[in-house]
Amino acid sequence: MPLREPEVVRHSPAALANRLFDCRVQTIALTAGLTDADATVQSMEDASPAKWHLAHTTWFFEEFVLASYAPGYLSVDPRYRYLYNSYYDAVGPRHPRASRGLLTRPTLVEIVDYRHRVDDALRGLANGSLPQSALDLIELGIQHEQQHQELMLTDLLHLFAQNPLRPVYRATGDADCADAAREPKWIDFPGGRFDIGHAGAEFAFDCEGPRHTLLLAPYMLANRPVTNEEWIEFIVDGGYRSPQLWLSDGWGRVQAEHWQAPLYWEQRDGAWWQMTLSGERRVEPAAPVSQISYFEADAFARWKNARLPTEFEWEVAARAQPIAGQFASTGRFRPSPAPPDGQTPLHQVYGDVWEWTASAYNAYPGFKAAAGAVGEYNGKFMCSQYVLRGGSCVTPAKHVRPTYRNFFYPHQRWQFAGLRLARDAT
Amino acid sequence: MPLREPEVVRHSPAALANRLFDCRVQTIALTAGLTDADATVQSMEDASPAKWHLAHTTWFFEEFVLASYAPGYLSVDPRYRYLYNSYYDAVGPRHPRASRGLLTRPTLVEIVDYRHRVDDALRGLANGSLPQSALDLIELGIQHEQQHQELMLTDLLHLFAQNPLRPVYRATGDADCADAAREPKWIDFPGGRFDIGHAGAEFAFDCEGPRHTLLLAPYMLANRPVTNEEWIEFIVDGGYRSPQLWLSDGWGRVQAEHWQAPLYWEQRDGAWWQMTLSGERRVEPAAPVSQISYFEADAFARWKNARLPTEFEWEVAARAQPIAGQFASTGRFRPSPAPPDGQTPLHQVYGDVWEWTASAYNAYPGFKAAAGAVGEYNGKFMCSQYVLRGGSCVTPAKHVRPTYRNFFYPHQRWQFAGLRLARDAT
Amino acid sequence: MPLREPEVVRHSPAALANRLFDCRVQTIALTAGLTDADATVQSMEDASPAKWHLAHTTWFFEEFVLASYAPGYLSVDPRYRYLYNSYYDAVGPRHPRASRGLLTRPTLVEIVDYRHRVDDALRGLANGSLPQSALDLIELGIQHEQQHQELMLTDLLHLFAQNPLRPVYRATGDADCADAAREPKWIDFPGGRFDIGHAGAEFAFDCEGPRHTLLLAPYMLANRPVTNEEWIEFIVDGGYRSPQLWLSDGWGRVQAEHWQAPLYWEQRDGAWWQMTLSGERRVEPAAPVSQISYFEADAFARWKNARLPTEFEWEVAARAQPIAGQFASTGRFRPSPAPPDGQTPLHQVYGDVWEWTASAYNAYPGFKAAAGAVGEYNGKFMCSQYVLRGGSCVTPAKHVRPTYRNFFYPHQRWQFAGLRLARDAT
Amino acid sequence: MPLREPEVVRHSPAALANRLFDCRVQTIALTAGLTDADATVQSMEDASPAKWHLAHTTWFFEEFVLASYAPGYLSVDPRYRYLYNSYYDAVGPRHPRASRGLLTRPTLVEIVDYRHRVDDALRGLANGSLPQSALDLIELGIQHEQQHQELMLTDLLHLFAQNPLRPVYRATGDADCADAAREPKWIDFPGGRFDIGHAGAEFAFDCEGPRHTLLLAPYMLANRPVTNEEWIEFIVDGGYRSPQLWLSDGWGRVQAEHWQAPLYWEQRDGAWWQMTLSGERRVEPAAPVSQISYFEADAFARWKNARLPTEFEWEVAARAQPIAGQFASTGRFRPSPAPPDGQTPLHQVYGDVWEWTASAYNAYPGFKAAAGAVGEYNGKFMCSQYVLRGGSCVTPAKHVRPTYRNFFYPHQRWQFAGLRLARDAT
Repeated sequence: MPLREPEVVRHSPAALANRLFDCRVQTIALTAGLTDADATVQSMEDASPAKWHLAHTTWFFEEFVLASYAPGYLSVDPRYRYLYNSYYDAVGPRHPRASRGLLTRPTLVEIVDYRHRVDDALRGLANGSLPQSALDLIELGIQHEQQHQELMLTDLLHLFAQNPLRPVYRATGDADCADAAREPKWIDFPGGRFDIGHAGAEFAFDCEGPRHTLLLAPYMLANRPVTNEEWIEFIVDGGYRSPQLWLSDGWGRVQAEHWQAPLYWEQRDGAWWQMTLSGERRVEPAAPVSQISYFEADAFARWKNARLPTEFEWEVAARAQPIAGQFASTGRFRPSPAPPDGQTPLHQVYGDVWEWTASAYNAYPGFKAAAGAVGEYNGKFMCSQYVLRGGSCVTPAKHVRPTYRNFFYPHQRWQFAGLRLARDAT
Repeated sequence: MPLREPEVVRHSPAALANRLFDCRVQTIALTAGLTDADATVQSMEDASPAKWHLAHTTWFFEEFVLASYAPGYLSVDPRYRYLYNSYYDAVGPRHPRASRGLLTRPTLVEIVDYRHRVDDALRGLANGSLPQSALDLIELGIQHEQQHQELMLTDLLHLFAQNPLRPVYRATGDADCADAAREPKWIDFPGGRFDIGHAGAEFAFDCEGPRHTLLLAPYMLANRPVTNEEWIEFIVDGGYRSPQLWLSDGWGRVQAEHWQAPLYWEQRDGAWWQMTLSGERRVEPAAPVSQISYFEADAFARWKNARLPTEFEWEVAARAQPIAGQFASTGRFRPSPAPPDGQTPLHQVYGDVWEWTASAYNAYPGFKAAAGAVGEYNGKFMCSQYVLRGGSCVTPAKHVRPTYRNFFYPHQRWQFAGLRLARDAT
Repeated sequence: MPLREPEVVRHSPAALANRLFDCRVQTIALTAGLTDADATVQSMEDASPAKWHLAHTTWFFEEFVLASYAPGYLSVDPRYRYLYNSYYDAVGPRHPRASRGLLTRPTLVEIVDYRHRVDDALRGLANGSLPQSALDLIELGIQHEQQHQELMLTDLLHLFAQNPLRPVYRATGDADCADAAREPKWIDFPGGRFDIGHAGAEFAFDCEGPRHTLLLAPYMLANRPVTNEEWIEFIVDGGYRSPQLWLSDGWGRVQAEHWQAPLYWEQRDGAWWQMTLSGERRVEPAAPVSQISYFEADAFARWKNARLPTEFEWEVAARAQPIAGQFASTGRFRPSPAPPDGQTPLHQVYGDVWEWTASAYNAYPGFKAAAGAVGEYNGKFMCSQYVLRGGSCVTPAKHVRPTYRNFFYPHQRWQFAGLRLARDAT
Repeated sequence: MPLREPEVVRHSPAALANRLFDCRVQTIALTAGLTDADATVQSMEDASPAKWHLAHTTWFFEEFVLASYAPGYLSVDPRYRYLYNSYYDAVGPRHPRASRGLLTRPTLVEIVDYRHRVDDALRGLANGSLPQSALDLIELGIQHEQQHQELMLTDLLHLFAQNPLRPVYRATGDADCADAAREPKWIDFPGGRFDIGHAGAEFAFDCEGPRHTLLLAPYMLANRPVTNEEWIEFIVDGGYRSPQLWLSDGWGRVQAEHWQAPLYWEQRDGAWWQMTLSGERRVEPAAPVSQISYFEADAFARWKNARLPTEFEWEVAARAQPIAGQFASTGRFRPSPAPPDGQTPLHQVYGDVWEWTASAYNAYPGFKAAAGAVGEYNGKFMCSQYVLRGGSCVTPAKHVRPTYRNFFYPHQRWQFAGLRLARDAT
């Protein structure tokens, strides 16, 4: 079990139940305006249908909580154990990932009904007395569902971006800012000996620990993420045509997949347009660039004579900042320009866009995955992926923290992922 | 234009309009019970979403009839010209075939609305005086839509067959017949000089002509299609494990795709089950085998020391028979056992299952595809495909005729296609 | 056994032996100048290494003649039965086709030694008294080896064409003709009732029969094959950019593989160059076009408002002509311009380039493949391929005849294949 | 230029020249017994033909040394600049990697001649006075050629392993040891603050620096690599059938590629056989396992309740050891059992097999790739690969050092790569 056992804060069961049902309701709220078809289609193997996210997060509670802690619980449909298992080999065989989009049945309505029935069972459970292990699994289930809330939005944008009609998921009335971004500033950080990773009483995923000590040389971070305006300069300067800027594998992707701009960008009559969850919009110059791969982030940094920060440099800098920023709760669902300079030296550390780091997603020293199925949650993906930090405009509020490690393959582009530049101190 | 100009019967415009709107209504009737998602998902590249069939058949009338003959007609949505063009290069660029299933919008309701608006425009047109060329195109549009009615059912079965929940498209109350089939009989046909292909006043596709004369040696045909029971004997005798029975390309498919039975068959506890439009059912011994490829049909025939008939042998035999049989109008949507021997020497010539023939789908001598976009209807597919004859249990009634040539690639298995054995006369 | 038993001329065993060893020597002669590496590499799955051709044709005699008719014969190396079986399922498992080029051992010298040892055994056999069945298999082995002589040259050209150094297989001193070709003439052929296919005492492959009667309408054939000069006009007129000229599958290939000219053509500074067995040379305007697919031949014919002849039209026209032309024996190994008009109405019917016909490679009525392994020689390939007629500049002399049916898939381009235009009689 | 400029030992030019020509001769010595074909074929895209290795290492001197420092030098063949460039985008376009095996010409003899002509030019250069930058590039060229000596052996083994005849590259007379291995012992290492990476006057690749300080927790290393005998226990215990032991991507490979044992192992009649450069041999129980992927190494460690060491743990432990072990100079070309326990606590740290580490191949803090083409040598591959340490039985002697970082993708299996277990100190 991936929780750090001795340290987890023992919230009251009632508070946990409140958070659980709030989370469940928020997930449903994200489906407003979706058709059954919108919720069913899988636009690529990396993405999953919204309906699948709804069902899988529910299966998670059924499989790991109700099956163990609710005596006599009968699963809503035993076939869902096969259909909605994502990757837990310990649970058993599962529907192939690439075929998730072929399940037109159960319908969206039936899945919502499935959710309610599982919620009812959880409510029954929450009224009784639960061992700490059950409470920990409920906490994990909430965190898990929050991750899928973000993925659901990310995957829906990918789906709608495939449609020449450019459907709008959420209309947002606000006009975009057409202003140029302020020049970035370099903020200095001293080197030294630092403790890295989660410690303390609050929830964290197993991969955020164990907390351990390491050395950092002095470094600098840009005070804000790279903007769309800067990215256009990179394009204009031939960034996508210059092999010397790229990692070898990255240049291979540029050529094989004809990359010329971030994933959802399109140039028409000299202007750049971008598909968003509010439909197609002009690219906003001062907003952080998003939907780029690690390869692109790395090439851009090289073009700027800079580099990506390590996840440790990022963590040390970020933990001095309040966890505030544009999260999914704003409903804007796209990155916003940095605020005017103010109290904090670094802007947009949290929210807006995940920031690619230079760190491969590896186990921290002393890491041990938990026993049992939930031990498959993080550890088995520690290979060939890179760490992203800070959360995005589609991350649920209160989901991230300074030690939070997101991870994706270096070629993947469909996340709300951008970058912040770093440099060695001079 | 693929109609045989000088010969087409000039039906009254009123009769044509009646047939047109009947056909349009029947198409909609096939969608009863489908969810938006059922109508949206594309289960493989060969198949198309039901919604796409609904829209494409409507686009056909917009593009080829309304755009030319309805002055001032404004298309419902100009983007549909791109989205719902199937393969007409002369019309312009089109949405990639493999991406048809990504279009969750327009919704099913919007597509039905699109259909009604085009129907209204056609109704307006039908009230006026139309040149013969327009009437011919309306006739072609009806025939085209009937073909898509069949494909819609065929593709839905493929979609539902991918779903472990085995959804039912149409529940049919009737019990299946568990009886063994009667032994087949060989019916003799004399050789000689025969005219082949369409002639006369009724509609036919361009590829059914020109009518021409050829020679046939005496031959025999089985009085009914091969049954499931016979197919099980083939399986049990190692048919799918015996390379000497197969064409080289066919054996390659058997191995690469692990063919062991017809497409939708599954063996559980010794019994054979089959996915149908009424859900999963026991394989009916006396019913014709269906959902087999040309490769399988050919291998089976070799195993029986027989062969497939040529399309010419089939046509000569079939034209002596009434065009009667189990078509889509019965609503059973799966092949039925042959009726008791009766007045006709051959059973199930029409309906139940398409019959693979030994004939490659080639142009008849003197064939010329029509000028313009509708000339792309048939001619450009005359390569590497095989002719099937007779229609199936999902073919609209009155759609087929003795000269009708259906065609598919020899590896394709998802059609309601079976076979009838032939032999040289002894 | 695919020979037409009752009819084969019973040549004297001594004459057969002479032809056998002549053939064996000619094969070796084709390897002059090849390095071990040239003879080993496989440049694509469709092609085979020269060394493999040398070994496989030898294995053929070992497997089908020596193993049955030479008592006590011990195979040179029992592992060759696995390595050099091409596609005979009845013989047993075999080395995968795509891996033929990984066999750097046995060396070329060892394979030549293998050939000699089998030749010695055959010589021993030829000195004794052999049953007719053995003589028939030796005849088949000779014909088989002649086919592989052609393939060896064809495959070597493909290999050398992959090499930017443009190696020369055989230097030929003669200058090419830079003249334009004479205008083609249309030659009329009457319709009627014709016997098609092999009959008589000479050898023919099983697929050339049974002889049968069919009807032809009057038709016209061009008096010579299409030339390079005409093909350049097709290119300049946008032939490779005009979907309306192409079969649907062909247009798919044009786009997917970026076809813009025949396989080995390259344009530099406005001039067309072509890789040949004599290295890279200017494209010869008056010579027949070669190395084109069926799809290209078909599109060209449509562009010319003509069509490809059926194999029956070709056969009827060709059998009135002497079997003369440029074969491999000239050592030129590339097509030559048509000779000045002379005694025969049709030029270059035999030799120079195989001519694609409009006929799918199907079984003739009454065809039965032979029992046993050699029955796999032709019959199992009767699917999705097209017939070519007449032989080429790399076909051994005396190998072809009017009834000879060569066959390839419509997308294949690496053969010495061109086309002759046909039309319906006006 | 990837050398650490201020620190490189300035060997005398004469000594450098001696090492250069020794190295060049050793490369040629490795080709003894190879046929032209052996040296030409490319058995998979990851591997290169021996001839290509011979030519590419020669091109390296031509491109980076002679072109800049030998006035008036004319390249042996200007087309080789295209054919034998490996991955240097700054040099220009290059022959596609996957097509290296199609170059039957130049022949092996011509390539050897090419080598001699370049050697002659280098000899001329070495007699004169050269700037330090040229000497540094010659040093780099030697190191580069040594790497290709190892790859040539590795790739030849892959090629010969594809051949059912199991060719022998070098017969070695010695019998293998059939004894079981001694039990491994755990050796303790204290934690603390350590300097990692190259420093000092000797040559090192750019990726081995900059030297930097980091912290290590106390750890243990096994005193020898994992043996074949232990690997068989892993197989027998279901290691290749137990998803819980594997990284997610690794388990995907196990299933997709049907891994059941190390790359060249085969089980016959209950015994394990292994393809080696001395042909097929019984698996030697006490010898280190080799030809395994990172995924397999990682799964084995998990099965043993251990882990892989980080590259830093390895380096700290290794630098206390003499650089001695079984390298290519022994000519055995396969791993040997560990020697009896003796003076050093760790056995086989150098030579025998590369040892996979848990460290992703990333840039050290402060790393900057050199300017110009040779800057592409290492830096652009710092993505998705893992570090291996210590050299193998096919590594040239004197090529490795404690800081040496080799790197491959985690799925790659054809290297002489094994593993040594690590554990956290208890």
